[in-house]
This record gives sequence, structure tokens and C-alpha cells, in this order.
Amino acid sequence: DPKLKVFTCNANPELAKEIAEHIGVPLGNAQVVRFSDGECQLKLNESVRGCDVFVIQPTSAPVNEHLMELLVMVDALKRASAKSINVVIPYYGYARQDRKARARDPITAKLVANLIETAGAQRVITMDLHATQIQGFFDIPVDHLLGVPILGKHFSEKGLKDIVVVSPDHGGVTRARKLAERLEAPIAIIDKRRPEPNVAEVMNIVGNIEGKTAIIIDDIIDTAGTITLAASALVEAGAREVYACCTHPVLSGPAIERIANSTIKELIVTNSIPLTEEQIIDKITVLSVAPIIGEAIIRVHEELSVSKLFD
Amino acid sequence: DPKLKVFTCNANPELAKEIAEHIGVPLGNAQVVRFSDGECQLKLNESVRGCDVFVIQPTSAPVNEHLMELLVMVDALKRASAKSINVVIPYYGYARQDRKARARDPITAKLVANLIETAGAQRVITMDLHATQIQGFFDIPVDHLLGVPILGKHFSEKGLKDIVVVSPDHGGVTRARKLAERLEAPIAIIDKRRPEPNVAEVMNIVGNIEGKTAIIIDDIIDTAGTITLAASALVEAGAREVYACCTHPVLSGPAIERIANSTIKELIVTNSIPLTEEQIIDKITVLSVAPIIGEAIIRVHEELSVSKLFD
Ligand SMILES: Nc1ncnc2c1ncn2[C@@H]1O[C@H](COP(=O)(O)O)[C@@H](O)[C@H]1O
Ligand SMILES: Nc1ncnc2c1ncn2[C@@H]1O[C@H](COP(=O)(O)O)[C@@H](O)[C@H]1O
Repeated sequence: DPKLKVFTCNANPELAKEIAEHIGVPLGNAQVVRFSDGECQLKLNESVRGCDVFVIQPTSAPVNEHLMELLVMVDALKRASAKSINVVIPYYGYARQDRKARARDPITAKLVANLIETAGAQRVITMDLHATQIQGFFDIPVDHLLGVPILGKHFSEKGLKDIVVVSPDHGGVTRARKLAERLEAPIAIIDKRRPEPNVAEVMNIVGNIEGKTAIIIDDIIDTAGTITLAASALVEAGAREVYACCTHPVLSGPAIERIANSTIKELIVTNSIPLTEEQIIDKITVLSVAPIIGEAIIRVHEELSVSKLFD
Repeated sequence: DPKLKVFTCNANPELAKEIAEHIGVPLGNAQVVRFSDGECQLKLNESVRGCDVFVIQPTSAPVNEHLMELLVMVDALKRASAKSINVVIPYYGYARQDRKARARDPITAKLVANLIETAGAQRVITMDLHATQIQGFFDIPVDHLLGVPILGKHFSEKGLKDIVVVSPDHGGVTRARKLAERLEAPIAIIDKRRPEPNVAEVMNIVGNIEGKTAIIIDDIIDTAGTITLAASALVEAGAREVYACCTHPVLSGPAIERIANSTIKELIVTNSIPLTEEQIIDKITVLSVAPIIGEAIIRVHEELSVSKLFD
């Protein structure tokens, strides 16, 4: 069978280490460093000839640096005769630029898909894409993992009572329903409306939340404006306490300050994106996606080996 | 005839302005800014439908940011129905990663060519590629402009006497010969040899430089190690004075300090890459490539229009 090798660039080496441990292989010997002028320099220090290679690299901030590191790594693996090149992108950067929201917008999520394929990737493993349409931007297999089972398990183990799962907008209802099913809880939806142009948005809550423990779920928390406003609205409307969770803690700009000062009791995130020093605050709990990504890699590797029988 | 439009991203807006002025068109209304999390956001504020569009963007430092800006711009132009998308990359970043110098190296100059084509560029205008082979990395037309005429004109106008043009290594001899022809001067070559492993390199000068005004020419000056050592070797060997010139002033790390403290009397560069505040020192003279790039754009636009007759 072709050997399975796991490599990482610089976006989330901790996660890559955990994944390699879960699978039971050493992390591949490669470094992406910088030349004096800032160009990426890849040092691929071991053979990958004939191997099934998995590269772990979320395209989190600085997204353009991390994307280029991934592309350079894939280019080198291809030229070094890897048997298969599988990119593991736990957080897919540019996912929110998935359509022309305005005239003459780029569709950068599609551009990125094309770039990854052009570099030579043959398969993608990713998690909670902001829009599932992005799977269709690729012409190679995309394994799409979900954060809900991990987040759900955490809340189940907490033994919370009288829960309601809240979607912060209409786009997130499917995700909220999945979590609600696991927790055997009802859902509620925050319905934002601007009564007139240039008038502040009004937050209506659709569903019964009074006296309940609300769990807001989103895929990405970026500047945390949406989620902290939703939490306030829930408390005002009579929720007993408010938890929040997401798969991808982007947490840019004022996010940490907003979360710290919010009515959110605890924020549960995953390590699809690593937190920086300043982002590690008491309120935030991090759950690891290494086991589910590790399992996905093992399954894909088996699949690749089986298919060899039919080659 | 389809309209000619010139756009710029953030790498060298000054040069783009000069080029647009040379051509006699206003600079297109577009901005590449950043979302809170660092993702590129493109605002293309005017129609490009049916236009021949030229995007000016050297992929200078920060190279990965500038490359991604270019790709996003090209993606948006493509989706906005530009008739032709022509990218003007006065300095082509990653050009020194043009071959496998070591086993398992990526060939990033080729990767970048593929990325630019994948985004949707249909023609490239560039200058003094570190390796002319890079033209062959593209499957679209590449117009390759030279800095030598601009640099040569400057030295001619100085009225220097008894010149010798010096190549700092064997790879640069063709370039040195071109400048020497314009100045009707002989050439010399610096021949670096390491007599034994782990012994300092010895600089032999091939050619007669004694009592002469030496002009060292290179394509890129990056950390300025090569050029400042070459200048010292020339002075030690009896050159009367030493000038240096290059097309692309990368000038990273210790470059400015080295140049300031060197025996180089004057360094002539072009504005293919803009100098930062700290890089502007008395010794450095900047010549503009806007006229030759402007002319190239006008010629390409005419060509595109003429070819329409045969469509
Ligand atoms: N990195 C980003 N940060 C903030 N907003 C973004 C980002 N990328 C895209 N957007 C905008 O977010 C909107 C899409 O988000 P959504 O409606 O949640 O799918 C569009 O209007 C985009 O212009
Ligand atoms: N950005 C860079 N800075 C410094 N060295 C580089 C850079 N990119 C590539 N190289 C190295 O420069 C060498 C190629 O330069 P050259 O021999 O002048 O063509 C190779 O050994 C590359 O590894």
C-alpha cells in the first residue's frame, strides 16, 4: 500500500501534530520559511515518491500568506512524485466571497478553488464551508466535515436543561436544526429587519426562548458583531442564559473585546483556526477537530488504496 | 475600437498613474482594500464590458499580498466581461525560483504563471525577467521589456569617460554586453570561486578595469551583498570609480545599509518596484519605466484592435 504522509505549513502546526498523532504517523519533515524579501521558501526534507500525502493548512489570516504556502507545498509535492496530493483545509478562507453580492464583484472562493486545483491538489478535505455551493467550485472530490457533532457532544456532556438552539440569521437555520436534533431541543431564529433605510436594524426573535438556556450557533465568528447583538437580544427577551458556538473562530478586529463584554456566558469554538495569545480568554473553550479530521484522512487513505485494485 | 482602460492594485499606484498619463487615459476607478480579517476586497467601480483592460501590478513585497490582489482583480475583470485582460507585471516576483535548485524544490515561478493564467489573464507585459525561460512558463503571449535602454541613456547623458561595464556573475554577461554596446565600452566579469569548501569566495576580475569607471549591472539587487562586494573588489583592483545599476530594486534586509556604506558612488534603479521612505537615499537615482511600458500598452492595444479585423 502507498504510504500515508502528513505535512503542515505554518497556519496550524499544532492541529497538524494532533492529527498526525491521531493517525499514528510522524509529521512529515518540511518547513515553509521566508527569503529575505518575503518570498516563500519551501524545504521538503523527505521523499514523498509514491506516497499518499495530506497537507494540513487552514487558509486563515494572514490568508494570502497561508494560501500561497499551501500552493507552493502542493507544487513541490507534485514535482516530487507524490502518488496523491490531498489538501486538508479545516477553515476555507474567502468562503464569504462565494457569489457576486454586487455588480463586478470577484468570486474569490471560486478563484481559490481553481488555484488549488491548478497547483496540483487532487482532493480536498474541509469543514463547515460558509456556503456548501463551494464544493461545486471544485472539479476534484471534496470531503465536507461538520463541526456540529463535536459542538453537540460538548453541550450534551454539560447536561444543560431546557435548551433552545438559536440561529443568528435565516442562512444558519439548517445548522441550528442539526444541533437542536442532537440536543433534542427546539430552535429559534433571529430575524433582522431594517424597518426603513438608514434606520437601525430591529432584532425579532422567532420562537420561544423565555426562561430557556439559549445556544447560538454560527459557522464563522469574525468581528463578533452579529453574535453579541443576538445574545443581548436574547437576554432582553427573557433567555435565562446564553451560550454561543461556532466552528471557525476568525475573531478579527474588535471580536475579543466584544465577546468579553457581552452577555455570552461561554463561547465554544474548534481549533480549525488556532487562537493567538490575545484571543485566549476564559470565556472561550476550544474543542479539537483532530479526531474527526484524522478519521477522515484514514478513510480517504483506505479508499485510495482500495481503488488501486481496480486501476 | 474597444476602449483601453488601465487599472492598478496596491503594489505601485504611482507608476500606474504615470503610465496612464503617458497613454492619455484616466486611471480606472477600482480599489483593492481589506476586510477586517485581512481578506482582499475588490471594488471595481466602473464598467469594463468590451474593454481592453491593462492591470499594472508588480509582484513585489509583500509578494503574496500583491499576487493575490492581482488574481482577484483579474477574476473580477473576467466576470465583468472585459474584452481582453492584460496584466502588466514590471517586476515578476518568485522569478528566482525558476528551477529545481535542490531536490524536491517547488518551481514557484511556473506556479505563479499558472495561477495568473488560471485567474483569466490573456497577456503579460513584464520587464527583465530573472530567467528568460519564464516566458515559456506561460501559454499566453508575454511581452518582455528591457531596462538596458533606460539605464544606458542615463549613463550616456552623464558623459562618463573610459567606462567598463561589469557583470557581477557569469549569468549576467548578456545583460552587461547589451549595456556595453550602447555605451561603446568593453566588459569585465566577476568570477567568484570557492577554492575549497568552507573557505571564503575569491573574486577574480576577468577583463581590464584599472583606472576605469566601472558600471556594474544586474537585473535584481536584493540584499545587495553581491553588488557591494563586487564594488569593493573593483576598487581594490584599481577601478577609478564604481557605479551600479539594476532594473529591479528589491532592496530587502541589510541592502540600504550596505549600499550606503559601500564604495558605490551612485546606484541607478528603475521604478518597477517603488522605494519605501527608508529606501530613498542620496546615492540612489530612480528612472521611470512608465514611458516604455506606456508605449508597450499602446502597441498591444493597437495589435488587439487590428486583430479584430481578422476575427
Ligand atoms: N472576509 C470578509 N469579511 C467580512 N465580510 C465579507 C468577507 N468576505 C465577504 N464578505 C461579505 O460578506 C457577505 C457575504 O456573507 P453572507 O451573506 O453571510 O454569505 C458579502 O456581502 C461579502 O461582500
Ligand atoms: N526570494 C529569494 N531570495 C533569495 N534567494 C532566492 C529567492 N528565490 C530563490 N532564491 C534562490 O536563488 C537561487 C537562484 O538564483 P540564481 O542562481 O541567481 O538564478 C536559488 O538557489 C534559489 O533557491
